[in-house]
Amino acid sequence: MKNVIKPQTLKGFRDFLPGDAIARNYVIGKIRQVFEKFGFDPLETPALEYAEVLLGKYGEEADKLLYLFEDRGKRKVGLRYDQTVPLARIIAQYQNIAKPFKRYQIQPVWRAENPQAGRYREFLQCDIDIVGTGSALSDAEIILCTLAVYEQLGFKSVQMRVNDRSIFDSAGLTKTMIITLDKLEKIGKEAVLSELRGKNIKDPDKIFAAIKSSPKTKRLREIFSILTANGLKEGKDFVFDRFLARGLEYYTSVIFEVKSGDYNSGSLAGGGRYDNLINQFIGINVPATGIAFGFDRTLEALTQNKLLPTNNSVVKILVTIFSPELLEVSTKATSFLRDNNINTELYLDADTKLDKQLKYADKRGIPYVLIIGPEEAKKNLVKLKDMKTGEQKEFTIEKIIQILTTS
Amino acid sequence: MKNVIKPQTLKGFRDFLPGDAIARNYVIGKIRQVFEKFGFDPLETPALEYAEVLLGKYGEEADKLLYLFEDRGKRKVGLRYDQTVPLARIIAQYQNIAKPFKRYQIQPVWRAENPQAGRYREFLQCDIDIVGTGSALSDAEIILCTLAVYEQLGFKSVQMRVNDRSIFDSAGLTKTMIITLDKLEKIGKEAVLSELRGKNIKDPDKIFAAIKSSPKTKRLREIFSILTANGLKEGKDFVFDRFLARGLEYYTSVIFEVKSGDYNSGSLAGGGRYDNLINQFIGINVPATGIAFGFDRTLEALTQNKLLPTNNSVVKILVTIFSPELLEVSTKATSFLRDNNINTELYLDADTKLDKQLKYADKRGIPYVLIIGPEEAKKNLVKLKDMKTGEQKEFTIEKIIQILTTS
Repeated sequence: MKNVIKPQTLKGFRDFLPGDAIARNYVIGKIRQVFEKFGFDPLETPALEYAEVLLGKYGEEADKLLYLFEDRGKRKVGLRYDQTVPLARIIAQYQNIAKPFKRYQIQPVWRAENPQAGRYREFLQCDIDIVGTGSALSDAEIILCTLAVYEQLGFKSVQMRVNDRSIFDSAGLTKTMIITLDKLEKIGKEAVLSELRGKNIKDPDKIFAAIKSSPKTKRLREIFSILTANGLKEGKDFVFDRFLARGLEYYTSVIFEVKSGDYNSGSLAGGGRYDNLINQFIGINVPATGIAFGFDRTLEALTQNKLLPTNNSVVKILVTIFSPELLEVSTKATSFLRDNNINTELYLDADTKLDKQLKYADKRGIPYVLIIGPEEAKKNLVKLKDMKTGEQKEFTIEKIIQILTTS
Repeated sequence: MKNVIKPQTLKGFRDFLPGDAIARNYVIGKIRQVFEKFGFDPLETPALEYAEVLLGKYGEEADKLLYLFEDRGKRKVGLRYDQTVPLARIIAQYQNIAKPFKRYQIQPVWRAENPQAGRYREFLQCDIDIVGTGSALSDAEIILCTLAVYEQLGFKSVQMRVNDRSIFDSAGLTKTMIITLDKLEKIGKEAVLSELRGKNIKDPDKIFAAIKSSPKTKRLREIFSILTANGLKEGKDFVFDRFLARGLEYYTSVIFEVKSGDYNSGSLAGGGRYDNLINQFIGINVPATGIAFGFDRTLEALTQNKLLPTNNSVVKILVTIFSPELLEVSTKATSFLRDNNINTELYLDADTKLDKQLKYADKRGIPYVLIIGPEEAKKNLVKLKDMKTGEQKEFTIEKIIQILTTS
């Protein structure tokens, strides 16, 4: 045997074979549909950006998480890390864009971290953001659209947890304390208190109590009133979660996170308002709010709740070739089915035994098979075999269209 | 002014703002629909691959065209250069995949070459391939599906040029001669003859004459007969082009290329049969055939022929807010429109003057605007303004759905 190249994928990267790719396309289609219904326009940015653009926001800490390298022109470049920084760049670069600018973006991002269970180095992100208005209405719009996406996907129990970081300021929390607080759900209250003490914070219990009794901010009251006017219920569809912190430094006021009762492994989406981020490109503050959907988690939750298509092929019917002499009738049937918008595969070897063609349909997971033997050809009929039940019956080709369109 | 980061894209890379992104999504949707109708299943592979995998086929020459770098684990990696090599890896890595394997792939690829006019360092490729059968039927299937894609996109005059490389072997051409012959259309016969002479080829005229009189190979006759049986016309829909060479070394027999009478800047798609490529991963030959669509050229041709949507927003209607007190009626109208699958934007600042809201709709290119003032609210009606004609008229909200669904 010759010296061959080992066929392998890089750690943290994934191939999506047809079954997986079909499920992913289905979910992307649903998400896109709701995004557009809510008036978000599509935007695409390059996979590669100047390293300077990518590093601006995250600083040195994220340097480790970026895929950075030098291109052939000796430019320092990197792979897209998220979709928020490219959006900030866009706003600065094309100042003529009408605002408020509502855009969605569905593209992969790359992170050079060591992938843990359920985490990958390449993953799809679905973002919606509204740039150019600081209104509570825009925060509410993000929340409404997000909940509509999960409803459209079939989730029964989804809740938006909302907080306003300014209550941390009122309670006297610094950035480093917020980062610790963000671990509350993961490590528990006692561990958080002890970590705060380790950071030389004297009275962490007092801080906890102060947060616990924080009233809603003006912005939260406004957002909640809009959500209520839209028929959502506080305590059910959305909730004021005073301990919600979210790690990212760039949020400036409200933050939000989607949790589902149908899924227990973390939040499905998260975001908030970031009024200073665009500043680094443009020198002035531009208000912005948005959310990023965790596509993999959403897919995992949908799988657990059996809400995904499970077909391994887009093909609805395989047209077999009974024998080389009968190739033309099979070809014609194939054309006819396709002209009627049925996803149709023609078996591509005219001299393969019918039995083997049926086995192929079975392995591919194709639900129906069409057989046109000399008998059927003479009668101008075709035989339809249901691969699930094994049942087979003769029909006119027109009747087949009807059966497949409604099945 | 503070020291800001310059917002810029890398040379050869592009942002797609909503107008462009909408057109691209439209074309991708049409292409995907035809691919699936012809029974091709979706496949996705990672952006990054081991350099060894990518370099296998192209050898050192293509080294210059690849984005190669070392990742944090000191692995030599590179960005996807095309979708054929990843497909070959997939076939070798998942040997259980049912064959013939028909897959489509629509993903960006990256090339580190110096971008010329109309060429980019990042561009979308749309590929269909059939792996695991050497039948002429599978070559014909690729051609049929490709022509169906262009028909679906609205092209009037598209022709598939087909050749078989074995006629070059019969005429005594070596690989280096084929590379020269590939330039025929670009540089003309005389320049090709002179380049051949420069390569120490004695009688290039004789070779030319030999090619010119080549008969169709058995495979070409088979393919053409299938195409004819499918209602296509030789000389119109497809043609035997004896001088079609195509640069890539890995084609083993038939090659094909799409030309359009509606577009004069090169071929729109190209492919062929490559029965040895998978060998490098697996140690045995696996027959394969396929084609890659030049997405940018196809888009350019569609633009030239006015076959693309020209809207700059997916939004069909902007619901304005007459005054803060009337926010709730506008919110309710927005919900109602969205529940009826109308892409609807709510203006996101309750205290912006109506005039400014209308200007915003105009700048965004939104075709309709809804106005609900105190008069309308009292009568339980809404005012619809057609932004193109400037006409405005009162309707019930139910009537609006009807107007927008049919317009």
